[in-house]
Amino acid sequence: MVYSKMSDEELLKLEGELEKKYREYLGLGLKLDISRGKPATAQLDISDGILEALKPGDCRSESGFDCRNYGLGDGLPEMKRFFSGFTGVPEKNIIVGGNSSLQLMYDAMVRCMLYGTVGSERPWCEVKGRKWLCVVPGYDRHFAITESLGFEMINVDMKEDGPDMDAVRRLVKDPDVKGIWCVPKYSNPTGNTYSDEVVRELASMECAAPDFRIFWDNAYAIHDLADKGDSLADIFAEAEKAGHEDRIFYFTSTSKVTYPGAGVAMIAASAANLALIKSIMNVQTIGYDKLNQLRHIRFFRDADAVSAHMRKHSEIMRSKFDAVLNGFSAIKDCGIAEWTNPRGGYFISLDVMDGCASEVYRLCKEAGLTLTGAGATFPYGRDPRDRNLRIAPTYCGEEEVGTAIGILVTVIKLVSVRRILADRKTA
Amino acid sequence: MVYSKMSDEELLKLEGELEKKYREYLGLGLKLDISRGKPATAQLDISDGILEALKPGDCRSESGFDCRNYGLGDGLPEMKRFFSGFTGVPEKNIIVGGNSSLQLMYDAMVRCMLYGTVGSERPWCEVKGRKWLCVVPGYDRHFAITESLGFEMINVDMKEDGPDMDAVRRLVKDPDVKGIWCVPKYSNPTGNTYSDEVVRELASMECAAPDFRIFWDNAYAIHDLADKGDSLADIFAEAEKAGHEDRIFYFTSTSKVTYPGAGVAMIAASAANLALIKSIMNVQTIGYDKLNQLRHIRFFRDADAVSAHMRKHSEIMRSKFDAVLNGFSAIKDCGIAEWTNPRGGYFISLDVMDGCASEVYRLCKEAGLTLTGAGATFPYGRDPRDRNLRIAPTYCGEEEVGTAIGILVTVIKLVSVRRILADRKTA
Repeated sequence: MVYSKMSDEELLKLEGELEKKYREYLGLGLKLDISRGKPATAQLDISDGILEALKPGDCRSESGFDCRNYGLGDGLPEMKRFFSGFTGVPEKNIIVGGNSSLQLMYDAMVRCMLYGTVGSERPWCEVKGRKWLCVVPGYDRHFAITESLGFEMINVDMKEDGPDMDAVRRLVKDPDVKGIWCVPKYSNPTGNTYSDEVVRELASMECAAPDFRIFWDNAYAIHDLADKGDSLADIFAEAEKAGHEDRIFYFTSTSKVTYPGAGVAMIAASAANLALIKSIMNVQTIGYDKLNQLRHIRFFRDADAVSAHMRKHSEIMRSKFDAVLNGFSAIKDCGIAEWTNPRGGYFISLDVMDGCASEVYRLCKEAGLTLTGAGATFPYGRDPRDRNLRIAPTYCGEEEVGTAIGILVTVIKLVSVRRILADRKTA
Repeated sequence: MVYSKMSDEELLKLEGELEKKYREYLGLGLKLDISRGKPATAQLDISDGILEALKPGDCRSESGFDCRNYGLGDGLPEMKRFFSGFTGVPEKNIIVGGNSSLQLMYDAMVRCMLYGTVGSERPWCEVKGRKWLCVVPGYDRHFAITESLGFEMINVDMKEDGPDMDAVRRLVKDPDVKGIWCVPKYSNPTGNTYSDEVVRELASMECAAPDFRIFWDNAYAIHDLADKGDSLADIFAEAEKAGHEDRIFYFTSTSKVTYPGAGVAMIAASAANLALIKSIMNVQTIGYDKLNQLRHIRFFRDADAVSAHMRKHSEIMRSKFDAVLNGFSAIKDCGIAEWTNPRGGYFISLDVMDGCASEVYRLCKEAGLTLTGAGATFPYGRDPRDRNLRIAPTYCGEEEVGTAIGILVTVIKLVSVRRILADRKTA
């Protein structure tokens, strides 16, 4: 039943029923949280072999390097091979970092700010009107970096096959537009994967800034939920073909493969970029934690082990995503919400009626359900249509997810009914 | 026998003998390295309990937090307590970082550059003539940071009791002087510990820059070689008394307590500084590796365990320092070199005759002995008197250290003889 086609009377009756139901939820004193993309405890447990992967007398890399001591600032060769294995990025283009790809991204941005990057006429901190493209809805922590460093952030809509490339092509004609945030596979929060065509265009398009950078955060490279996952084109290969290999900063990590708090991250870039990055990184640190790299290598003996491991993750996660989608099916034909059905990643993106997301967030919060803040998926926390909400079902148990979505659906209905009635009054 | 009092004839004879001996070394095809402050394998072995400190099902902090997952961005409370235990810094002033205190220093400097710090009128990157005080001889990696970030570095001599405070007091009258590097205990490379008086003066002196910062790198806080180690005054307490608590950025790590490549580092600062640091660090990363913090906590059950552990280090290291000092005793009365006799830390600082350090380095290198580069202990790698060399005897075996110092002493003698003869010719 499409709500907007219901009579005032029908809507008022429905509102009464929904208010009753909502009050029941209030009385339950629930405390549920589907706000952050955190793996569940059961997911962490499947990596616990890592805790016992190293033994005294067994801390040497393949080449015999003692990973306990200083040295090997750009990481273990075998860890580069590990990342190369599932990203397709050549080992020689990889630097292995610490436990946080976000930190590698922030640090990469800071280097551009203070030193400039390959092709820069001057450090970005001297570019007063520096701008950055943000695919929306997107990842709040990306936007926090560019906000913190004083970029004017420009929204670019996410479409089925990736960012709206008409908008991107137009915007990169401005030389002050220095780059774009991309989560190209199972994007946060929509779950979209960029099409080959979009990847190719991003790699080949003409940019006015000679130092334009794509921050390619392939956080969910191997995080399939469906039996057959999406495939992502190789942006490095495409950029090289177009003579733009310096355009790409490529990131990934094992944060959601092994441990969010104690995984291993990487940055990859062209030879020219890498030389500059290393020369500065070598001032910043003597090296990242190589023992943790070695733990990962010992734990994942080969690519098959990684695939089998990721299947375990998806087995744990899938039922929770199903619980969300099943819950949402109750409002499938109401015309009050749309949501994504991703084949991987950590999120479902939910669009409610324009102007309703903040109110949905507020009423859920009062009923004990924490969602990612309304607006969080947009730069400056401002969703221009106040409609997007990010659903992160992984941390809770399946039953809790069911309860959470029950509350959410009730609240969406209630807020939508009220909105329709209010709109009719002012019309 | 003081070389400068020898006749030309005596010196020429001695030169011939030394050249013969040097040629013998050349023939041995040695490969020795006393260039970096790296712990020996035997020192790493004593920490190997860390490798097995965590078991599946045992990854929770005292408060029950699952250290495998996201969260606790400023570190485990018990790890703060650990650092507080031996630095005397209150737990509430501590942020626990990753495996590298150097990285925390670089990142702290970068934040000052891009955002400014408490008291700043503007970010330091906008202070065109920014300057930094460098106690010399000092730590090359400190100097690399301030060089990389465009500071004009000003040498301040190290005296028996710390930096030349007459010079420091004069220099900080310049508002463009933004700070000073300090290794206050067992300083790199001289091994001096700052006197209480010097610590007090650094904390209380009037600085023209309202955002003057002391980067207090207490890297060797508990690294005694002698039975009774040096004691260092509490700079935080002194700064607080003087109303300058925002002046101090305090760093230390377990790099030379447990593993250089996989220890835990910290930064401590005043409440006002900490609030600013956290607000930016929270953009940079979701958090450092808490599992490694937990490993350290499990391994060191209490302060006594730490003391006992550090005694094991000193037992391994002491004989190597003795080997250096014994070797140097051969040139004790020659008037051609002076060296320090530290009660802790990782280095012995050696001053040869003015203008001779580079040549000593070169001849040692040719004979297969790698020293820290001549000049490395000074900003820009420029030792104005070309006389300082840093001896790092920890990584080699005791016997190798003996051989290395044998070569070094022969080379010092040879270079000194030649220098004296050359000086007489041009006189």
